[in-house]
Amino acid sequence: MDYLESYRKIVKGSGVIALATSVNDMPNVRIVNFCCDKENPSVLYFSTGNDNPKVIEFNENNRVAFTTIPTDLNDTPHIRSHSAVVQKSDKTLDDLKNLFLEHSPGLAEMFEMAGAYLSVYEIHIKEATVIAGMEDIGTVSF
Amino acid sequence: MDYLESYRKIVKGSGVIALATSVNDMPNVRIVNFCCDKENPSVLYFSTGNDNPKVIEFNENNRVAFTTIPTDLNDTPHIRSHSAVVQKSDKTLDDLKNLFLEHSPGLAEMFEMAGAYLSVYEIHIKEATVIAGMEDIGTVSF
Repeated sequence: MDYLESYRKIVKGSGVIALATSVNDMPNVRIVNFCCDKENPSVLYFSTGNDNPKVIEFNENNRVAFTTIPTDLNDTPHIRSHSAVVQKSDKTLDDLKNLFLEHSPGLAEMFEMAGAYLSVYEIHIKEATVIAGMEDIGTVSF
Repeated sequence: MDYLESYRKIVKGSGVIALATSVNDMPNVRIVNFCCDKENPSVLYFSTGNDNPKVIEFNENNRVAFTTIPTDLNDTPHIRSHSAVVQKSDKTLDDLKNLFLEHSPGLAEMFEMAGAYLSVYEIHIKEATVIAGMEDIGTVSF
């Protein structure tokens, strides 16, 4: 099994991720839209409001974990990682707008309304677990 | 808006949650099935394998966070909490099997196959945020 190929397919087919943070060993988690440049699958991009509480959490501790969302835990492929860090991107929403909308066309309205207040963040993934099936689990490293 | 009533509806309509832990300030997150007894909405039950890595994490730090999964971040009601703790339940899977299957009928096959290896855990929620709509956000406390 080519787990990197599975990883790419799962990322492409997932609209959102659950993104977890921790500050003083107190976890938090929220659902975020994201996109990924196929040339560099080890980085996921997401946008968030500049004054969103999660930004404060990122500044306290940049280690994050995420999972894509399986609709059926028994047979939906998904990926998980807790070897990741988050950082503010040098790219702007304008730079990545097309990539976001290609990934999730439903974001257009939100970008139209709130785009001026959004910054782009990057999740840099060192290693991810690919759960291709109940007994078909592999690892990709970047 | 009666946020407790919204909370109950969202819990009832959600098949899975994203459950986050932290050990030594390193977050982790996974998707779990769950169920909830309507008589006591401040406790969510889920089952997990006795030797699952998450059990080790719970023993290290029992503070957890969770979110239900909105399908559209713009208009899907969801709940989130990071004021929660996890503990092993005194109840068995047999005690709660009907409640689980009422919540998620799709679990029947998994329980049939792996039931003997599963324990029940409880998430005790002190406070949850109810995102009923983009600009309709409230809190429930227990």
